Amino acid sequence: MHKKYLKHNAFTLILLALIVFQACDNSGTNTSEARETPADPLPSWNNGEAKNSIITFVTAAIDEKNENYIPVNERIVVFDNDGTLWSEQPYYFQLQFVLDRIELMASDHPEWSKEQPFKAAIARDVEMIKQNGLEGLLQLVKETHSGMSADEFDAIVREWIDTAKHPQSGMLFKEMVYQPMLEVLDYFRENDFKTYIVSGGGIAFMRPWTMDVYGIPPEQVVGSRVKTSFESIDGNVVLKRLPELDFINDKAGKPVGIYEHIGQRPVAAFGNSDGDLQMLQYTAAGMGPNLMVYIHHTDAEREYAYDRESHIGRLDKGLDEAREKEWLVVDMACDWKLVYPDMK
Amino acid sequence: MHKKYLKHNAFTLILLALIVFQACDNSGTNTSEARETPADPLPSWNNGEAKNSIITFVTAAIDEKNENYIPVNERIVVFDNDGTLWSEQPYYFQLQFVLDRIELMASDHPEWSKEQPFKAAIARDVEMIKQNGLEGLLQLVKETHSGMSADEFDAIVREWIDTAKHPQSGMLFKEMVYQPMLEVLDYFRENDFKTYIVSGGGIAFMRPWTMDVYGIPPEQVVGSRVKTSFESIDGNVVLKRLPELDFINDKAGKPVGIYEHIGQRPVAAFGNSDGDLQMLQYTAAGMGPNLMVYIHHTDAEREYAYDRESHIGRLDKGLDEAREKEWLVVDMACDWKLVYPDMK
Repeated sequence: MHKKYLKHNAFTLILLALIVFQACDNSGTNTSEARETPADPLPSWNNGEAKNSIITFVTAAIDEKNENYIPVNERIVVFDNDGTLWSEQPYYFQLQFVLDRIELMASDHPEWSKEQPFKAAIARDVEMIKQNGLEGLLQLVKETHSGMSADEFDAIVREWIDTAKHPQSGMLFKEMVYQPMLEVLDYFRENDFKTYIVSGGGIAFMRPWTMDVYGIPPEQVVGSRVKTSFESIDGNVVLKRLPELDFINDKAGKPVGIYEHIGQRPVAAFGNSDGDLQMLQYTAAGMGPNLMVYIHHTDAEREYAYDRESHIGRLDKGLDEAREKEWLVVDMACDWKLVYPDMK
Repeated sequence: MHKKYLKHNAFTLILLALIVFQACDNSGTNTSEARETPADPLPSWNNGEAKNSIITFVTAAIDEKNENYIPVNERIVVFDNDGTLWSEQPYYFQLQFVLDRIELMASDHPEWSKEQPFKAAIARDVEMIKQNGLEGLLQLVKETHSGMSADEFDAIVREWIDTAKHPQSGMLFKEMVYQPMLEVLDYFRENDFKTYIVSGGGIAFMRPWTMDVYGIPPEQVVGSRVKTSFESIDGNVVLKRLPELDFINDKAGKPVGIYEHIGQRPVAAFGNSDGDLQMLQYTAAGMGPNLMVYIHHTDAEREYAYDRESHIGRLDKGLDEAREKEWLVVDMACDWKLVYPDMK
């Protein structure tokens, strides 16, 4: 599904080969194996520094005698969604939702066939959508994400997530979640951490399915949102979604979203792009023990390989800062035994 | 502590007398006593319809065979704070916090002694503050609630809540919480409900102490807020509180705040004023079993008696709607054995 990408990136391939041959040698790090009795909490992770760092952090956090113990009420861990819990290439899955909605709505809007950005959306011409810029994209988002009640939008998303498939893999989008990260979510929860999603994606786009897919309830999802108004019509009350962006939960917005929704600083944060950098910085600035993790997309064979040059999910400044500050960088190709659950 | 109030309200007194003599006859409602074995979950509540309604709702919610069973993930219960969990007379306790802060800050602002609304605030002239109107009040709020980091504000509130006392009772404000409501909070939580505060008060003003006082963690507090920005200065990152109101979580704002923070409709809601009416309407519009409760301040002896005419915590339209729709109206004078914990 990623052949086109690879053709354009011979240099990346060579780099990848170097990384695979150098970094996948985890033979010297057997510490985690000693901890794996009786049950391995992260069976889809290869033994090595990444797996070991996560287990060491959690093991210490729940041990009252350990200097890195964390009281239960402070065990907040945050996860980016796109590229951290599920895939995000060749473009964010929520854009696919937008295009699917525009297609369904187009018959009621004959004028769209001649108007940008709708013309490009109907043609599913993502390059043209990019050329139409942020304003065009926001117009598509407003058209598809507002004008209905909260309950109606919820039902629309539920139907989509149960049926929509990835254009390259043919898998349901909700099947393109990372098995190793599902295990991380479970592992944290089993040890009394509260797991949160903190995503640039739409909060109302995620909440209808995060419980089923990730075990994360709606109240533990933080994301971007449109304005909403509470209206009473003939004794019936309804929450109406308005065509106005209220908050963008990305970059410097992520710590703000965390402050608004959670009200306390996380002790651990997982991201994969520069859009997560401020969230990781905010987590790192806490006084107690903490864990900052970047998922590095190094796996062109099983998923996608991209970082500094990618339009979607660019990881550039974040990668530099992670290395400088010795945050954990997970190498998907080396650290994960498999990517998606159906590879089991 | 409420003599002044009573002098102005002879009519209320007569009404109260009528209510007390009529409504406190709970002799015919012994159903709840049968349920009280082995331990009474609400020992500070007199037997009667109010106590019985709450216990019946919770008992059914956790019984899979009951038609009013509620799955654990949907057990969301919301509570207003001012006048529902703690007192709010003779004015909201957060205004007392504002006045205390202005007093501390005044030495750095000699110009305030001649400028409204600061002059009135320094003189603690609440009547004059009211005359200065909403704009003047918001100016005081901005001055005292912004300009510092999130962590600094948190520390300021913590110090205040541990020391500040009510001007009439002489009790710490945090001691003026309702013992019967503390029992309701515990009772819901013991039965796997998530308890939330949904208040018109400041979210950052409540979060530092709601865990200690109510057992409600910061992430389960919804309230009004100022804008916040994430700033990085010389490698240090900080959340700065800005002098701009971002959201007022009152009246029609309450269902909006619930949608933003919780993302699902509560199954039970407790309030005490018209400011809670939309929250109760939103809860009542759910498809499954639900419980809407108004705490009615009828107790001039042990607390305060006020409703339709009060400037603070007015309950007028809400009382009509509660009676029309047969929501539960708790009569503090009749239904509660005691008000504050120290009365035990």
